[in-house]
Amino acid sequence: MQHFSDRLATAIRARRSVVCVGLDPVLERMPRELVEKYRPQAAELGEEAAVAACFQEFCSGVIDAVADVAACVKPQAAFFEQYGAAGWRALGAVIRCAHEYDLPVILDVKRGDIASTGAAYGHAAFGGAAGFAAPAAGIGADAITASPYLGDDSLAPLVEHCAAGRGVFILTRTSNPGAALLQEVEVDGRPLFLRVADLVRELGAPHIGESGYSDVGAVAGATAPAQLRQVREALPNAFLLVPGYGAQGGSAEALAGIAAGDAAGFVVNASRSIIFAWQDAGGDYRRAAATAAESMRSDLQESL
Amino acid sequence: MQHFSDRLATAIRARRSVVCVGLDPVLERMPRELVEKYRPQAAELGEEAAVAACFQEFCSGVIDAVADVAACVKPQAAFFEQYGAAGWRALGAVIRCAHEYDLPVILDVKRGDIASTGAAYGHAAFGGAAGFAAPAAGIGADAITASPYLGDDSLAPLVEHCAAGRGVFILTRTSNPGAALLQEVEVDGRPLFLRVADLVRELGAPHIGESGYSDVGAVAGATAPAQLRQVREALPNAFLLVPGYGAQGGSAEALAGIAAGDAAGFVVNASRSIIFAWQDAGGDYRRAAATAAESMRSDLQESL
Repeated sequence: MQHFSDRLATAIRARRSVVCVGLDPVLERMPRELVEKYRPQAAELGEEAAVAACFQEFCSGVIDAVADVAACVKPQAAFFEQYGAAGWRALGAVIRCAHEYDLPVILDVKRGDIASTGAAYGHAAFGGAAGFAAPAAGIGADAITASPYLGDDSLAPLVEHCAAGRGVFILTRTSNPGAALLQEVEVDGRPLFLRVADLVRELGAPHIGESGYSDVGAVAGATAPAQLRQVREALPNAFLLVPGYGAQGGSAEALAGIAAGDAAGFVVNASRSIIFAWQDAGGDYRRAAATAAESMRSDLQESL
Repeated sequence: MQHFSDRLATAIRARRSVVCVGLDPVLERMPRELVEKYRPQAAELGEEAAVAACFQEFCSGVIDAVADVAACVKPQAAFFEQYGAAGWRALGAVIRCAHEYDLPVILDVKRGDIASTGAAYGHAAFGGAAGFAAPAAGIGADAITASPYLGDDSLAPLVEHCAAGRGVFILTRTSNPGAALLQEVEVDGRPLFLRVADLVRELGAPHIGESGYSDVGAVAGATAPAQLRQVREALPNAFLLVPGYGAQGGSAEALAGIAAGDAAGFVVNASRSIIFAWQDAGGDYRRAAATAAESMRSDLQESL
């Protein structure tokens, strides 16, 4: 099967875009027409199912609108998990919708656990759990995010799936205010997140695609540009997944110098500033999302 | 609402037990009678639904069997997530079954994310996500496990739920071989996991129940007894959730000196050695689980 990294590189080249559209649906920010459509269904289907159906239509609408402009999409599992089994089912439908447009899907789950539990998280994302007659399909992600706190043996069961065309993005230096607390403690004169970057490099070395990128990438935030560049220096051929652009305050300037290879080598995630653009821009939520994503694509092309 | 820590202390006292039964169902290890019952349903219901139904009956059977002997149960979300929406629904049913016996449920999810995403993980476990007419119920856990890598602002949205009677167990020094890689890097002369313990103490200080324990506890493995004692010294009034006993090699001796307060102050998790005891002991899986849990209870009482 084709490497995840090659598929992502192809998507970046084909759309001439490093935009990753984050799918973080929030009920309070759903467009009025969807609220009016699904609110009456809550009594019949239950709250969870009605909200999940609303999220599914909303996210599918966003995907339709940004498919030509986005390199990939990143659904955030937490927003779906809140609505239980119905949310999980809607998440699967959203992933399938992205695949209709050949958009790679990075499922943001920040999982990580050891041994058979770690393997089970891999199966949940990528399929392969034992079934009676055939393995379970999993939710169909192309890549997931993973947390490194438990160590290399918690990442290995996820990285294993790279051999079957999947990818893993390991948290290094995240975009939040509290990130420094653990990630920047000094270890032998270097911040901890660079020790994690070493781990990303080791785990990713056996999984380099034809495009020269590894299937094991790193999450590194745009809100800390100096640390972001350190991660890039440590990982010359990893794809970087860069959150923190837009609503969280990171700018295109923060990305200076992090391009690598001939397909950028990074994607920049924006969620709220794209999917809820209609709240500021007015009009149809899909059109507003397309405009916001297009504007972000231009903004980032200038800085490359 | 009663503090989570008080409810756990009550359960420990009532059962005179520090046994936490881990619910980690694996299809290959299901008892023959359940396989024979659910295998034929795969064609009709689909693999995921058939396996999920099998897990639900199995885990409910284990809960019935150990309810008098266990202080709490710990379902591992990954094993259910593998089977998608059907797995998620079965997980909810297993939690409700434990509640019928007044058994506190620690949902092992190792989540952690920031801002609205962190809040969404809290809602997924404990309820409270916005609905059209009423908030979504969540999966109904009493406590969850959380990973600290993203920092204090990723833990705060979970700890918030302590005010509503829930608990959070934050990973400090885990039980796996790779744990040391990040958790034991030296920071100002102390291992990193003790810095995390400081964080557990700070976050837990406002959430002390009548029993003197905090609703914010720590996960610390029995496979590293010296580090386990260091965590206890740093956290005199936290509940410790201790994995690594039994199948992973930790022994009752490893727990020497970690008791604190008048309700032990810790619970010891065992999963496979209890729920799959039937494979060695033969006979009914429920009876084998009850015997294994009872034997573990005795083993641990001697070491207290």
